[in-house]
Amino acid sequence: MKNYLHISDLGNLQDAVKEAIALKQNPYQFKELGKQKTICLLFFNNSLRTRLSTQKAGMNLGLDVMVMNFGSEGWQLEYEDGTVMNQGKSEHIKEAAQVVSQYADIVAIRAFAGLIDKEKDEAEIVLKGFEKYASIPVVNMESSVGHPLQALADAITLEEHKTVKKPKIVLSWAPHPKSLPHAVANSFIEMMKLQDAEFVITHPEGYELNPEITKDCKIVYDQEKALENANFVYVKNWSSYSNYGKVLSEDKNWMMTKKKLGDAKFMHCLPVRRNVVVEDAVLDSNQSLVIEQANNRTYSAQLALKRILEKL
Amino acid sequence: MKNYLHISDLGNLQDAVKEAIALKQNPYQFKELGKQKTICLLFFNNSLRTRLSTQKAGMNLGLDVMVMNFGSEGWQLEYEDGTVMNQGKSEHIKEAAQVVSQYADIVAIRAFAGLIDKEKDEAEIVLKGFEKYASIPVVNMESSVGHPLQALADAITLEEHKTVKKPKIVLSWAPHPKSLPHAVANSFIEMMKLQDAEFVITHPEGYELNPEITKDCKIVYDQEKALENANFVYVKNWSSYSNYGKVLSEDKNWMMTKKKLGDAKFMHCLPVRRNVVVEDAVLDSNQSLVIEQANNRTYSAQLALKRILEKL
Amino acid sequence: MKNYLHISDLGNLQDAVKEAIALKQNPYQFKELGKQKTICLLFFNNSLRTRLSTQKAGMNLGLDVMVMNFGSEGWQLEYEDGTVMNQGKSEHIKEAAQVVSQYADIVAIRAFAGLIDKEKDEAEIVLKGFEKYASIPVVNMESSVGHPLQALADAITLEEHKTVKKPKIVLSWAPHPKSLPHAVANSFIEMMKLQDAEFVITHPEGYELNPEITKDCKIVYDQEKALENANFVYVKNWSSYSNYGKVLSEDKNWMMTKKKLGDAKFMHCLPVRRNVVVEDAVLDSNQSLVIEQANNRTYSAQLALKRILEKL
Repeated sequence: MKNYLHISDLGNLQDAVKEAIALKQNPYQFKELGKQKTICLLFFNNSLRTRLSTQKAGMNLGLDVMVMNFGSEGWQLEYEDGTVMNQGKSEHIKEAAQVVSQYADIVAIRAFAGLIDKEKDEAEIVLKGFEKYASIPVVNMESSVGHPLQALADAITLEEHKTVKKPKIVLSWAPHPKSLPHAVANSFIEMMKLQDAEFVITHPEGYELNPEITKDCKIVYDQEKALENANFVYVKNWSSYSNYGKVLSEDKNWMMTKKKLGDAKFMHCLPVRRNVVVEDAVLDSNQSLVIEQANNRTYSAQLALKRILEKL
Repeated sequence: MKNYLHISDLGNLQDAVKEAIALKQNPYQFKELGKQKTICLLFFNNSLRTRLSTQKAGMNLGLDVMVMNFGSEGWQLEYEDGTVMNQGKSEHIKEAAQVVSQYADIVAIRAFAGLIDKEKDEAEIVLKGFEKYASIPVVNMESSVGHPLQALADAITLEEHKTVKKPKIVLSWAPHPKSLPHAVANSFIEMMKLQDAEFVITHPEGYELNPEITKDCKIVYDQEKALENANFVYVKNWSSYSNYGKVLSEDKNWMMTKKKLGDAKFMHCLPVRRNVVVEDAVLDSNQSLVIEQANNRTYSAQLALKRILEKL
Repeated sequence: MKNYLHISDLGNLQDAVKEAIALKQNPYQFKELGKQKTICLLFFNNSLRTRLSTQKAGMNLGLDVMVMNFGSEGWQLEYEDGTVMNQGKSEHIKEAAQVVSQYADIVAIRAFAGLIDKEKDEAEIVLKGFEKYASIPVVNMESSVGHPLQALADAITLEEHKTVKKPKIVLSWAPHPKSLPHAVANSFIEMMKLQDAEFVITHPEGYELNPEITKDCKIVYDQEKALENANFVYVKNWSSYSNYGKVLSEDKNWMMTKKKLGDAKFMHCLPVRRNVVVEDAVLDSNQSLVIEQANNRTYSAQLALKRILEKL
């Protein structure tokens, strides 16, 4: 594997999940693989799980890990070609990406969607800029359109907790006071397409995700109907895609409750707003898998890094 | 030892001090103890000594150390139970503490008193939140009410520099332009109760500390009298406790001077404002132990982490 | 070598360059040298190359590396002697430098010129404060007047790319919208004085650098004339020195172009503003050595740290 930008970079998902679960059994067995190699984690946005789990995954593999908050510690970057850089930006992505490539063997990037300019967000300018100009492998720690490390962690969690061969899995929109990106939902859907599962998406009208991503997916606007007989319910807020970045509804009826959940397992990528996205009773029950998902972030990252290191 | 939240967690103080001094002689002898283990240092406030000494202590023990400024790099945390989280806070301590527990074997927390709401400060919501919800040991890197790593470093320093069996030790308030927490004074007093020493506290009226902590301590309002025949003078500013968080006096007469100090050794936890808290002549003399105290922060942290690692 | 504050600390430059090139061939051969030793990198200003390359250099030598943004994570420092510290600054350089010396074996400092008060900048108060009060070796990661790690990296790059015994090397001022320090230009000139080269400085009138540094250097105000038959052109903006810190000109005619460059190699320390300092056609051509220079920052730092470690 050259880069890990997209869940499809893994090839066969079931194989990747199995390999990650094997890593989880013995996280230090590939400590030699990263010896005398360095990964640089560049954060253009805040992070708790991604920062700690990716750093841990790197250390488990014997990598030296350098963490940098690019926004506050580095220089403002220009991404456009041919610009006369006489404004606020002091470095071009062309130089930045090549320079980082001199000091590390792998670079991982987190750069969220701005949720103002759809075209710019969909171009994933930060991640794609590093992919284009860096001479080293690039890992997506959540870009403006995808979060494949989360999706792989979710796939591991599903594998560990499924009790039927072909579970019913529902992705259910939830209310949230702020405008949130589509990255987690997008990558979850792309991962689901690689699963043997009955997959249903439910959200209020106006919250349709990018139709290229949801193509062939079953969308049910009636949440109650969608949740019927679900084995797993993945809850997530996202802002409107058509009315880009807007909060169209904070309808509390869409909050996940114990009653709605029934016997299903509850999943969420975290951070989660209690009693807005999901009620306490769900998170505090043993139906919640959110901490398992967070734990699997380490092995998701470790699998991606192991695959990359094997090809270096 | 499960956690290090309070000086009393050490059990017998004299034994702990001896063990720390032995570590200081040979800091790398327990390098295997931390192998393939990780400590996460979470800072909700600024730090120089605590950050560097705790990181160093961890590395001396072979631990992988992850440092994170929670305030600027992570998410704003909610600590209340049952809240509808539709305001500024995006993650609950319940999730945050459990999540960090997935990536580390020990977590250390620095979260100062806000000095506005006494009840909230005394609840030590950040530290106690992690203690309650984390599944890994928790270390106090200064909470709203205590700073036990500093107190242990002070105990080591006293042991190294005492020349009489039962020294006279004075804790003397000093003026300061800003409102400062009580944590260092509290933990120093609690540590003093475990010492074979004549202990006196001196401060202007109105600066009485929490009476539960100073119970059975000798308080002398006349600084000159208090300092008579002192062997060690520990100087520290704190804001009012009864008139919570207020600066009642900046009276320069309380500044420590060479003259007042006499032959005693001078101690302070640092950072210290020169010629406000203490005059240059004291800090620049060989009666000052402040750098020794700072140095002993490493062995204080190393002793606490060693004790925790031995029980993991 | 005790400290690395100035290019002259290296002694014979040619020997240092050869040693650095040998390190580059086998960066991990001195991994034992830094074992059980720690370097603390203190940043008072932003950094990309310096942060990552110095951290990498330290790790290559087996050092434990602690990185700290002193400005945002630590305390505001006082540098004046005898001050009554009752204003914004909470710690004196005397304590800070001695304290850091307790936790590290080497300290590296980045503190830019403020470009407002020439006398203060020339005193290099931060770097010199650490030099004066620290008990451990000090490395200059760019001070208010010099950037010797950059100058050594430049010397390595020149050595690797020169095709004639005595090349013609031109330092050419370039326009820039912001007021920039003189540090890189100063150290480059000091390094050039140790080279067997024909060296010419060119800039608009009013942009003369510190005459003590440019003493005996050839200065040609006509850029075209200066560039004639150049083998290497080092481009850099700096603000006025006589009219201290002022931007006197943004004259686009001084931008480096492919046409002006001729067959010469192009050098710049980065970050660089494209189409302001230099046109795309230069940076995107194989005449540009900027990425090589950035790469050599690792070996420049590694050489300096190796020399210091050998004397510890």
